Amino acid sequence: MDNKQIKNESITSQEVDFAQWYTDVCRKAELMDYSSVKGFIIYRPYGYAIWEQIQNYLDKRFKETGHENVYMPMVIPESLLAKEKDHVEGFAPECLIANIGGNAPIDDPLIIRPTSETLFCEHYAKIISSYRDLPKLYNQWCSVVRWEKTTRPFLRGSEFLWQEGHTMHETEEEARTETLKMLEVYDDCGRDLLAIPFVKGRKTDKEKFAGALETYSIEALMPDGKALQSGTTHYFGNGFAKAFGIQFQGRDGKLTNPYQTSWGVSTRLLGALIMVHGDDNGLVLPPLVAPIQVVVIPVAAQKPGVIPAAREIAKKLQDAGLRAKVDDSDKTAGWKFSEYEMKGVPLRVEVGPRDLENKQVIIAKRNDGTKLTVPMDDMIDKAKELLKTIHKEMYEKACRYLADHVTEVHNLEELNAALEKGGYAKMMWCGEQGCEDKIKELTNATARCMPFNQIAFDDVCPICGKKAKKVVLFAKAY
Amino acid sequence: MDNKQIKNESITSQEVDFAQWYTDVCRKAELMDYSSVKGFIIYRPYGYAIWEQIQNYLDKRFKETGHENVYMPMVIPESLLAKEKDHVEGFAPECLIANIGGNAPIDDPLIIRPTSETLFCEHYAKIISSYRDLPKLYNQWCSVVRWEKTTRPFLRGSEFLWQEGHTMHETEEEARTETLKMLEVYDDCGRDLLAIPFVKGRKTDKEKFAGALETYSIEALMPDGKALQSGTTHYFGNGFAKAFGIQFQGRDGKLTNPYQTSWGVSTRLLGALIMVHGDDNGLVLPPLVAPIQVVVIPVAAQKPGVIPAAREIAKKLQDAGLRAKVDDSDKTAGWKFSEYEMKGVPLRVEVGPRDLENKQVIIAKRNDGTKLTVPMDDMIDKAKELLKTIHKEMYEKACRYLADHVTEVHNLEELNAALEKGGYAKMMWCGEQGCEDKIKELTNATARCMPFNQIAFDDVCPICGKKAKKVVLFAKAY
Repeated sequence: MDNKQIKNESITSQEVDFAQWYTDVCRKAELMDYSSVKGFIIYRPYGYAIWEQIQNYLDKRFKETGHENVYMPMVIPESLLAKEKDHVEGFAPECLIANIGGNAPIDDPLIIRPTSETLFCEHYAKIISSYRDLPKLYNQWCSVVRWEKTTRPFLRGSEFLWQEGHTMHETEEEARTETLKMLEVYDDCGRDLLAIPFVKGRKTDKEKFAGALETYSIEALMPDGKALQSGTTHYFGNGFAKAFGIQFQGRDGKLTNPYQTSWGVSTRLLGALIMVHGDDNGLVLPPLVAPIQVVVIPVAAQKPGVIPAAREIAKKLQDAGLRAKVDDSDKTAGWKFSEYEMKGVPLRVEVGPRDLENKQVIIAKRNDGTKLTVPMDDMIDKAKELLKTIHKEMYEKACRYLADHVTEVHNLEELNAALEKGGYAKMMWCGEQGCEDKIKELTNATARCMPFNQIAFDDVCPICGKKAKKVVLFAKAY
Repeated sequence: MDNKQIKNESITSQEVDFAQWYTDVCRKAELMDYSSVKGFIIYRPYGYAIWEQIQNYLDKRFKETGHENVYMPMVIPESLLAKEKDHVEGFAPECLIANIGGNAPIDDPLIIRPTSETLFCEHYAKIISSYRDLPKLYNQWCSVVRWEKTTRPFLRGSEFLWQEGHTMHETEEEARTETLKMLEVYDDCGRDLLAIPFVKGRKTDKEKFAGALETYSIEALMPDGKALQSGTTHYFGNGFAKAFGIQFQGRDGKLTNPYQTSWGVSTRLLGALIMVHGDDNGLVLPPLVAPIQVVVIPVAAQKPGVIPAAREIAKKLQDAGLRAKVDDSDKTAGWKFSEYEMKGVPLRVEVGPRDLENKQVIIAKRNDGTKLTVPMDDMIDKAKELLKTIHKEMYEKACRYLADHVTEVHNLEELNAALEKGGYAKMMWCGEQGCEDKIKELTNATARCMPFNQIAFDDVCPICGKKAKKVVLFAKAY
């Protein structure tokens, strides 16, 4: 049976309506479902299992780099959130506030945490007193709530799952190093786990985190030409430490404030995965995050020996350490092909009567649809090799797309054309927020980041004509 | 140096004030800290790492038994919680309610989840339509909020961490089997991981979960003679399913309601661990949950070769798969002995100049204080063996204490005496709530459970004199 004949008709094609395609995939691949409260989604088993793979990778990396997990309260008293001025101004508009507990009003209303800097600072003030107590390298896995008007699954939710690292350091240098080190960990996660190339860089002051001195981000590029901020790390200096009275006795015996960072990635990475790799047949998952890496499907399953053989093949793959499953249900092979393509399973192993006769299987790659006939005895080695190949192919394809969508621009006209094409407009910039605002007004694009290691290519800012100081990437963004 | 000389004076002895001892250990072993909101605690790295070990054990067991993880919203609209009458009556008094979002009032106020039956049911109603969709075996790791008046770290909090399993089944029998199967998994966790013997049994109707038909529990016995309910499993019948309109087409083609269970354990298990095993020197951790299984402490650390040797020993232990660390800080060996005893580290390896000369180490067991001299070459094997021994000894000690504190009683006088001694009063009971209430009124003890596999030992209920039907354990409880 040619699986081209049974293309799944139930999802919108990317070309017809990319946004609808995205929502269709989220639901039909059973990644999520809506709850009755807007912006609060249900992470279904298949979606949550992908998140667990991301958690496993990052948690290991965090621990290897000396971090410890903690858990802070999910509520922040209004008075505590208000302690750092810029921070509360940034978050106040999107707070969910509880003011009834046990049928009685709460004096100091409780904000469901939108982020936990204030909670960590309150705790750090109690447990840090000497340079011997530093660094503190804490991380927390939890969910946070930000009351959003416009929500989309994984991309913007009123509740989302994330990790937030919060660290305190003896010196400015050490804190700055941490800020960049964790950005590298996120970048590694993109390259090695998600097969997504990120652009790394520093945020402009306009785009930085509320209360931070500097924000850095990883930005992913979606096939509709829009950028997706996929993770951030922040350097705080000692501003929060001062506001929260966090002090330690230094090596010189003097009391001083420690330097702080925070950093986080969220289930937004699922949104990036779906869009960067997906196609009109549904999800395409990189092998290392795929909850099912290989699905074994019996063809002409009613023929003697086929189902037992399919089960044995799945068992062999599992024993070899692969996440494999057999679908031996009474659905048609065609339905199954379509279903596991929708779910983005990297490899499909088909086995039918003729394959049994010839001591072979057919292996199909989800990412490009190629099919191979493989001798049964080579199956395990071939499957392992193909999973590596798929990761590499998916990453390289995403890299090519990214490279094709960074356009150097020297004036407003070129900026418009680049944004029209989709992707990043790479521009020299004076550094003034006025020009950033003007671009937003004219094009609806925002400064995504000032990427690392750039060479200046213009002398003047094309917006104001003043001296150009920085290379910036502008793009429309999620 | 004899570590008896440096007993840690900073915690209250159990005999002087058990409750204060408990709080002291929670804080001095750095398991937790208080936040500024009553009942919302901070899980510090050492406490959270123990919880992670428990999570790892249970998550593996859940997956092996076919369960899948999901994540549901952290908020429940008031109208949704109210759909099942008994359930909302049980939980309404302890709800934390949010009614402002993004600076605007929320029409249907949001309850921060105290438990998630209603959310799971709302979702199940959407995704279950045929017997082919069953069973649904879902689990969620999250935190929940129940607004409590009296709070104690880990034992009773306004917020706590837990897992909640929620399953739907085609038949009553299958759901009942699940309810008891998960109770066994919890019991295994006690015996194999926590070294805690639980009493398993069914709750009386008075003590069952709001909305459940039957509740089962594992109960642990604390050294102050009080019981601690440590986990529960519930059989719901199809009551929620009816209230939420969950229906499926059965094998006979007819629409019918599925049968439901839920089950959970929480960070309360940390409270059980602390109390069951702890002593006047602090925590005593069972090896399998101990974040540090072996601490290596250099003695006369200033002598040449001692610190490098200590580091090498720790490295060897780590390479052998043990969670080992060396404390090579400039604190005294005595301080370190005391510190890691407080933290309940199962094994301490001491190494000093004489040990190096004799190619040996000293190994001390936290649970009973015994010390052994071990040839360096045997260290790894001996450490592994001792960790197993310690688990066995701790479990057996707890079993003996439990066995010594179950007293068969035949009248009110004996009931009082048994409760005075501490532990469980084992009594035949008529099954009427009136008698249960009367015992509560007279003794402040509650029915902990009707334990499995009991043999009747009296004909009449000692309270009312009517026919006795069931064996019940009464105890004072946390």
